[in-house]
Amino acid sequence: YGGEMVGIPMDDEGMQIDILEETLAKLKNDRKKVKFIYTISNFQNPAGVTMSLARRKKILEVAKKFEVLILEDNPYDKLRFEGEPIPSIYSLDNEGYVISLGTFSKILCPGLRLAWILGNKKIIEKLVIMKQATDLCTTALNQLIAYEYCRQNDIDKNIESNVEIYRRKRNAMLEALDKYFPVEVIWTKPQGGFFVVATLPEHIDTGEMLKEAIKENVAYVPGGSFFADGKGQNTMRLSFCYPSVEDIDEGIKRLGKVIKRRIKN
Amino acid sequence: YGGEMVGIPMDDEGMQIDILEETLAKLKNDRKKVKFIYTISNFQNPAGVTMSLARRKKILEVAKKFEVLILEDNPYDKLRFEGEPIPSIYSLDNEGYVISLGTFSKILCPGLRLAWILGNKKIIEKLVIMKQATDLCTTALNQLIAYEYCRQNDIDKNIESNVEIYRRKRNAMLEALDKYFPVEVIWTKPQGGFFVVATLPEHIDTGEMLKEAIKENVAYVPGGSFFADGKGQNTMRLSFCYPSVEDIDEGIKRLGKVIKRRIKN
Repeated sequence: YGGEMVGIPMDDEGMQIDILEETLAKLKNDRKKVKFIYTISNFQNPAGVTMSLARRKKILEVAKKFEVLILEDNPYDKLRFEGEPIPSIYSLDNEGYVISLGTFSKILCPGLRLAWILGNKKIIEKLVIMKQATDLCTTALNQLIAYEYCRQNDIDKNIESNVEIYRRKRNAMLEALDKYFPVEVIWTKPQGGFFVVATLPEHIDTGEMLKEAIKENVAYVPGGSFFADGKGQNTMRLSFCYPSVEDIDEGIKRLGKVIKRRIKN
Repeated sequence: YGGEMVGIPMDDEGMQIDILEETLAKLKNDRKKVKFIYTISNFQNPAGVTMSLARRKKILEVAKKFEVLILEDNPYDKLRFEGEPIPSIYSLDNEGYVISLGTFSKILCPGLRLAWILGNKKIIEKLVIMKQATDLCTTALNQLIAYEYCRQNDIDKNIESNVEIYRRKRNAMLEALDKYFPVEVIWTKPQGGFFVVATLPEHIDTGEMLKEAIKENVAYVPGGSFFADGKGQNTMRLSFCYPSVEDIDEGIKRLGKVIKRRIKN
């Protein structure tokens, strides 16, 4: 039961595997048992970074060397706006070191609460028992709805049109950021997923600033909660998933005002 | 995290509260922290026993004395075939000592996976956070289905007709047990719920006997798994919920044969 999280920093190619390796070596030396390596390989939430193919191969090598499982969380897999898809870590592995998580939430409907896990049989069998103890079973009705949807429709076409919508929204957000955010702020340009992360000047605490933003009827998720080690206090996650293109423009405009006011003070 | 279960014996009036009180005193003395008292107050699964009103009042007193919460699991609440309903422990309490669990599984449809929790606000707030961390939220679609069902229909009438069906099935099972089970076996006569528990001669292990029963295409749940302390190896839970009246008769007939064979050997 329980556990302690250790954060591994990322760069533009995703998790820094050399630091992962050092960390695993240190933990082994300290006789701490590592439960698994968690990663969102595609369009990481919140940073939007995708792990390169070279890193995927390397993380697998490291996992095998230290005999640690990789939990590859892959909810945004199909939501790529540009560039070539990269094979999942799961698909690169043939020794059962990777557990892969997928979900209907991002490609069909979040309200169904349907998802899936791929992994080696031994682990899946244990997870089935654990799931039975937790909730007996996922709702049968919703499984049938998803099944019938996929049988009667081409879900890939549905995803394609979703991607088209999200691409338009991402573009709207990037344009609005260019227009309204002050030059002191930098942000990610995600190739997929739902999120842009903006990094503000270090002295600004986005958790504190949220109250001011809410007064302007606009909200974001303070970035600090995504860090395992208390960093990222000056970052914010901006979602372009739900709001309309018009609301994105208006929201970023209002946020830009709030930030400019903070920078002045 | 985690925990250790301690079983409290029952008699015809439900949990034996004097033994509960002794056990709590002993655990307190051993400086063991008790997380909560778990009870199915109505038609306990598997024994079918309902806690008397006197015991309900007493368990509440004991809980307050030791400052321990009661988790009242109440899935079979409305499924009473005869006799007067008894107020829930939750309804007798006005100091927030009881958490009550209810479910749509037994009165509308199990495949929706919908249930509810009643309790004092502080605990519910923590449970909401815990639930969000576990699964974000219960499927919105199914909540709307249950809402619309209750809005457009009289769910109490639906329950009434269900109770009528289950009463007929219980009667069929009790009649079949009289006809086919050997005199060495005794069983409960539940006033509600889904289950009859039969107790066989002590030398018969119902877990082991299950294989023979399955050969005859009839199954039951070995009673041992319902005991926290490894007892009940010679008991079996028989469900009259799903099978038809005809299948109940045939199933009990076959089980009777298997038991008679065991008793002879």
